[in-house]
Amino acid sequence: MTESPAEMLNAALETLIPVAHRMGVRFVELRPGFVKAEVPAEGNGNHFGVIYAGVTFTLAEVLGGAIHFATFDVSTHYPLVRSVTIDFLAPGKGKLTATASMADDEIARIKALATPDAKVPFVFEAEVTGEDGTVVARTKGDYQLRPFGR
Amino acid sequence: MTESPAEMLNAALETLIPVAHRMGVRFVELRPGFVKAEVPAEGNGNHFGVIYAGVTFTLAEVLGGAIHFATFDVSTHYPLVRSVTIDFLAPGKGKLTATASMADDEIARIKALATPDAKVPFVFEAEVTGEDGTVVARTKGDYQLRPFGR
Repeated sequence: MTESPAEMLNAALETLIPVAHRMGVRFVELRPGFVKAEVPAEGNGNHFGVIYAGVTFTLAEVLGGAIHFATFDVSTHYPLVRSVTIDFLAPGKGKLTATASMADDEIARIKALATPDAKVPFVFEAEVTGEDGTVVARTKGDYQLRPFGR
Repeated sequence: MTESPAEMLNAALETLIPVAHRMGVRFVELRPGFVKAEVPAEGNGNHFGVIYAGVTFTLAEVLGGAIHFATFDVSTHYPLVRSVTIDFLAPGKGKLTATASMADDEIARIKALATPDAKVPFVFEAEVTGEDGTVVARTKGDYQLRPFGR
């Protein structure tokens, strides 16, 4: 029985972040340094007929946890979001897709600093697109990789 | 039969922003230049036992629409969010409350500029606190007041 990282995280999302699960957020690709998630339009719109800002924010934000899960050691460290700036660039219509990547040298830098005593800050950017490829939003967040039990 | 602005907006929230309604977001005070909303902890946590970041964001963000409803002419203009920065300052535990205010001179400035042809940019800040008064998050957003039909 082999589950992909995306399948594992999808199975856990209802427990990890029930709000995101209820929106229908679903991870579609997770590998070290790259993550991708989707959210359907149904139930997530506002009265202007576009996806509500809080849904777009959530879709981008969950990628911070997902890239941690796909890239770093979840048994010793967890990710914490400190600050996020989200720029809304176009109305989100239909299913939204968010992607984020982290370069190999940035992954190596973070891993080298992630000792049992250290909080490791990192900047994490994500992009949200609509079904036609239009960039709906971009986020830039300050995160920390934190050791458990400190 | 007199409904307060908060009661009116609460009654409409399920239609306006179903996601926020499902989180349990509720407006508790709305008057020109001041808005306040709450969200319960139930169903809105994450696996760390704190309110999920997307819920905190949503609670603060809906105040942008609420202050418009309470302060400006909803028959001629609507609010649009362009960008938001959210700083997460402390873990959100229990019910969260968000407040935002707009000074009289800022309201006067925006009203003077809100002609049928003009998009009026304004900066909107909100603060989210926990049940014990701890500041959980602060947001600073770039919004626009936009005329309908343009």
